[in-house]
Amino acid sequence: MIAYNPKDWFGFLLRIHRGETLRALFPLLLAVGAYSAAIAYFENTLFNEETRKAAASLGIVYSTLGFMISLMLVFRTNSAYDRWWEGRKLWGSLVNCTRNLALQSDLMIGAGAGSATLRARATELLKIFPSVLMHHLRDQRVDLPGLPSTGHQPLVTASELRSVLHQAAAPLPRPEASLLLLNHNLDEWMNICGACERIKNTPIPFIYSVFIKKFVFIYVMLFPWVQSGPLGYKVVPVTMLILYVLASLELIAEEIENPFNGDANDLPLEGLCSKISDSVSQVMGA
Amino acid sequence: MIAYNPKDWFGFLLRIHRGETLRALFPLLLAVGAYSAAIAYFENTLFNEETRKAAASLGIVYSTLGFMISLMLVFRTNSAYDRWWEGRKLWGSLVNCTRNLALQSDLMIGAGAGSATLRARATELLKIFPSVLMHHLRDQRVDLPGLPSTGHQPLVTASELRSVLHQAAAPLPRPEASLLLLNHNLDEWMNICGACERIKNTPIPFIYSVFIKKFVFIYVMLFPWVQSGPLGYKVVPVTMLILYVLASLELIAEEIENPFNGDANDLPLEGLCSKISDSVSQVMGA
Amino acid sequence: MIAYNPKDWFGFLLRIHRGETLRALFPLLLAVGAYSAAIAYFENTLFNEETRKAAASLGIVYSTLGFMISLMLVFRTNSAYDRWWEGRKLWGSLVNCTRNLALQSDLMIGAGAGSATLRARATELLKIFPSVLMHHLRDQRVDLPGLPSTGHQPLVTASELRSVLHQAAAPLPRPEASLLLLNHNLDEWMNICGACERIKNTPIPFIYSVFIKKFVFIYVMLFPWVQSGPLGYKVVPVTMLILYVLASLELIAEEIENPFNGDANDLPLEGLCSKISDSVSQVMGA
Amino acid sequence: MIAYNPKDWFGFLLRIHRGETLRALFPLLLAVGAYSAAIAYFENTLFNEETRKAAASLGIVYSTLGFMISLMLVFRTNSAYDRWWEGRKLWGSLVNCTRNLALQSDLMIGAGAGSATLRARATELLKIFPSVLMHHLRDQRVDLPGLPSTGHQPLVTASELRSVLHQAAAPLPRPEASLLLLNHNLDEWMNICGACERIKNTPIPFIYSVFIKKFVFIYVMLFPWVQSGPLGYKVVPVTMLILYVLASLELIAEEIENPFNGDANDLPLEGLCSKISDSVSQVMGA
Amino acid sequence: MIAYNPKDWFGFLLRIHRGETLRALFPLLLAVGAYSAAIAYFENTLFNEETRKAAASLGIVYSTLGFMISLMLVFRTNSAYDRWWEGRKLWGSLVNCTRNLALQSDLMIGAGAGSATLRARATELLKIFPSVLMHHLRDQRVDLPGLPSTGHQPLVTASELRSVLHQAAAPLPRPEASLLLLNHNLDEWMNICGACERIKNTPIPFIYSVFIKKFVFIYVMLFPWVQSGPLGYKVVPVTMLILYVLASLELIAEEIENPFNGDANDLPLEGLCSKISDSVSQVMGA
Repeated sequence: MIAYNPKDWFGFLLRIHRGETLRALFPLLLAVGAYSAAIAYFENTLFNEETRKAAASLGIVYSTLGFMISLMLVFRTNSAYDRWWEGRKLWGSLVNCTRNLALQSDLMIGAGAGSATLRARATELLKIFPSVLMHHLRDQRVDLPGLPSTGHQPLVTASELRSVLHQAAAPLPRPEASLLLLNHNLDEWMNICGACERIKNTPIPFIYSVFIKKFVFIYVMLFPWVQSGPLGYKVVPVTMLILYVLASLELIAEEIENPFNGDANDLPLEGLCSKISDSVSQVMGA
Repeated sequence: MIAYNPKDWFGFLLRIHRGETLRALFPLLLAVGAYSAAIAYFENTLFNEETRKAAASLGIVYSTLGFMISLMLVFRTNSAYDRWWEGRKLWGSLVNCTRNLALQSDLMIGAGAGSATLRARATELLKIFPSVLMHHLRDQRVDLPGLPSTGHQPLVTASELRSVLHQAAAPLPRPEASLLLLNHNLDEWMNICGACERIKNTPIPFIYSVFIKKFVFIYVMLFPWVQSGPLGYKVVPVTMLILYVLASLELIAEEIENPFNGDANDLPLEGLCSKISDSVSQVMGA
Repeated sequence: MIAYNPKDWFGFLLRIHRGETLRALFPLLLAVGAYSAAIAYFENTLFNEETRKAAASLGIVYSTLGFMISLMLVFRTNSAYDRWWEGRKLWGSLVNCTRNLALQSDLMIGAGAGSATLRARATELLKIFPSVLMHHLRDQRVDLPGLPSTGHQPLVTASELRSVLHQAAAPLPRPEASLLLLNHNLDEWMNICGACERIKNTPIPFIYSVFIKKFVFIYVMLFPWVQSGPLGYKVVPVTMLILYVLASLELIAEEIENPFNGDANDLPLEGLCSKISDSVSQVMGA
Repeated sequence: MIAYNPKDWFGFLLRIHRGETLRALFPLLLAVGAYSAAIAYFENTLFNEETRKAAASLGIVYSTLGFMISLMLVFRTNSAYDRWWEGRKLWGSLVNCTRNLALQSDLMIGAGAGSATLRARATELLKIFPSVLMHHLRDQRVDLPGLPSTGHQPLVTASELRSVLHQAAAPLPRPEASLLLLNHNLDEWMNICGACERIKNTPIPFIYSVFIKKFVFIYVMLFPWVQSGPLGYKVVPVTMLILYVLASLELIAEEIENPFNGDANDLPLEGLCSKISDSVSQVMGA
Repeated sequence: MIAYNPKDWFGFLLRIHRGETLRALFPLLLAVGAYSAAIAYFENTLFNEETRKAAASLGIVYSTLGFMISLMLVFRTNSAYDRWWEGRKLWGSLVNCTRNLALQSDLMIGAGAGSATLRARATELLKIFPSVLMHHLRDQRVDLPGLPSTGHQPLVTASELRSVLHQAAAPLPRPEASLLLLNHNLDEWMNICGACERIKNTPIPFIYSVFIKKFVFIYVMLFPWVQSGPLGYKVVPVTMLILYVLASLELIAEEIENPFNGDANDLPLEGLCSKISDSVSQVMGA
């Protein structure tokens, strides 16, 4: 994630940042500018006055189509942003429930005798789980200390922690009741993992994605035909501006839709991992 | 579900994919094109200048109607997408709670003696439940091993798992407390099943569906009457474009509204079933 | 609820169904058509050219007002649809938690000795609760077997079930822990009942409902005054079309706002009741 | 709350009801009508043809501004309605959890011996809590039987009920487990109380409220300057209509934003209090 | 937070308040006014009639762009307001769960013998936690009585409270069951803390923030070029009004996006802290 100060307007306006859409769109903008200049030349040379009047009427139709395309792109942005924000919430929940697990493990494992090994193991597992999940979401594998490195790695880690806590609870007078205190947070680990996998693996429906792209394409390609009558060569910057706005919204949606990849605009997973690790160290005293 | 790379623009624009709306709408587009050409011929031959000016005024009214129809179609798309996404969330929850059930059963059944049979049975039930639910949502029936194949199959499977876990808990010192650890996830199975049935059985209210279709029909059919005055034969592609946009949105909504059927744009239930089955195998060691 | 196939377009377009808005609005449409014809005659006979130009300028203002009225009606539709869908979700939850109660009661009551009577009574109560709730939501009363028929009937039924389950739990070693397993689902019964009562008893605020109706009325009544200048007698079908769209949205909202009444577009409560009853029979073996 | 039949259109249209916005806005409407008549006189006497054409161009800009103001007012209405509806949901939850507390207390207190006094006290507290909360939300104080009347009254009542239930549970074999059955609903009382306080004490951010009001004011005040060129004296009713629509939306939002005050459009708290009291009586037999 | 009466319209309209956007934007408004006056002079002196007609056509395009920019700013406002409101909800939950913790601790600690010290310590921790969290969210540190002042201060405080409650529960017959009664509320402390950190540390994605600012800038800067043809010098106030509206929405969103800082429009955290402290005192009798 790019850390930034949202109140610094001038910095935003003057520089073109890494990961900004203007960069990605630059070649396309130039191509469409040339295309619309060609159409404008063609129309202004060959069309008569009457055709221009028809185009003015088309303007109203075009504003209705522009309205529809705006609503659809806002819907697209909304659903992409919802994923991004849900991803952030899930990692926030991971912070919370790992902290709670640490607080609860601290009291539970400290209560038994000869539990130093179990305590160290629980601490280790609590500290690596976020990092295991992060790599899992990026299709990478990590070395799990003392665990098989095959299969679903977050599941292996969670399974091991459950097993350690069961062993720690066994000598207590009522182990099930002790486990009930932290059972919900153990469940949460898997819930968070599954929800992140869902966001990662499910883009918006194919049919919808393809429809938006085709509609944007048709809209921009027809624009100089419709407007170069009344606008003349002014149609070139206008077409480019419209392309910039429409394509930016689609690009932004694609960019933030899968927030786990470590791209410029994705979530700061590394930072959250080390934050969780610090909290666990502080609580478990290790 | 069609797996695709959302950043591959050119592939999207140049090909017409299976399950895309352009395919389904092609004959209708041609018919409406012919219809609007006929209207344009009729109007341009018979109407005088004054009627055309009236039509220009109608253009403004038409843009208001176009605005209303856009808002309604966005509302329609939203509610259909919400169902699709809720369906995906439910199956994500099924992944999570089945994994948690496996982790919890692993520890609970392992703790008793002579529990090999119960453990094998629990593993089997955990692995088939997602597939049972999938077939149930497609009005298909499967062979349930050692269970009656009549009645509500997911309910039969969940009932059997509850019974197996009760038997496994019986020899433990405090069986109810042990069962409390996994009770919530057992409840979740039925909650997910019922919620999927709800999405499957409840399209948007009939009155609303019928209204949107009639409104789209009237809007498109009147369009060449209103606009062929100023636009002339240009009204033909414009009418087709408007029909394409409006009907696509309605078609997409119908397509994704029931996401369990295995159509081109539906959820990848088979993949999720085998993913859950793998996770259960990994945890239960079978 | 009307069961329908959402992909059958032609059936929708050609027939006028029971419970469709076109039916309810027919007399009003005719009256407003006559009214606008009268205004058009009046204006076209008496107004001069300059007044007509003023009307064209009003067209832009009118499109802003049309925009506002559309947004408000979409908001209205949204909030009505949210109630309808929340009602459906609540009845879906009723399916789920009654199934879970059946699964849990089955195991709990089967465990004690001499529990045949309690088991039969629990089965009976689980089966009738949805039907009791349905009649309660329609301000009807039913005969409750072996219970007083005064007071709040769903509350009486839930109270009796709680009492039966307490009696069934009493001989178990740790009755409170056993009851904890199904306590959440018992709470859910009352939560669902209260939420349905809320939807039934609370339409959108009076002030908002009255405002939307007055605004629609003023908008439609002024329309022929504003537009009959440029449109002439074409204003008659346009006014009728606008009235049809605006009034339909309001009528649909009123129709689906209270989804429990058994009208053409309401929820299929009878079907859900018998579905729940079947599930309970299957689980409890009765 | 005003009880009304949402399907009675004619009653709505012909009468001006208590608590309707038309009443509150009447003097303002007249003042603005006079103001715009003055502007119209001024412009039509002094301005030439060219300035009028400029105004026609401004009309398009004005429609963009009208669009923005509509979106903002819809956002405002949405957030106000969300509070109103959340308030209703909270009181619905209060109905539900108090009923559940009554059902659970009935079984728990009935189980001990010599518990008549505790039972009567619990019944009394369950019956008065909603009324205590209602008065608390209206900054009123009530006489609490046998309790100090200082401090936070709902908190005092909830504290007393917890204490009574602890005393009732003490003689049971496993009091903590019995208390676990109703602990969630006791927590809910405070959650509901806190959430109602939140809605009451937090209007939308000051900066936003002030911005909407200034924008509405500027928009309406400039309207006759912009439009009286083309519209002439017709600008007077149009300005009044626009003011009526915009100011109504803001007034409605202010009216329903705090739904606990007992105004004409607020929630029927008294009715809900007596409904809860009846339910408690029915369950606890008092 | 600024406390205000939302029904006091005249106060709002006549004064310019601290923390209002008009203040912050004043220099920018003047600069843009001068800029557009210069453009208007330039165009009206040099452009001919035909160019002006082209500009009129651009007006329609511009209204489509204005529509897009409005939708984006409403989306921006919505997401900022959602954070602000979620922050308020979290602090409302903090009020609720701290009250519940106080009620539960009161009964639990009072039940053991010789628990005066633990009770005093619990009271102290319950009273300072909100204030610790508030300072933590403002990157400030406080003196924690008897605790290390390094590390994550809310975590240290919560850890200490858990430890105190464990010690208080130890002499009870079934300490785990007693702890289960308040375990959920202890978890909530960390959940609330983590969610507030999330809101504080995560502005909307950089790519989106930069895009909105660039789009607003381009839109306003081009406006006088497009409109000064038909509008003449009237373009100056219109440009300023448009800048005021667009920039205000962006400024409001930035202002309320992080609601914990104690700025004029932020949440009244100090008030909530002392409210919680009062409630704890009242319940714990200290």
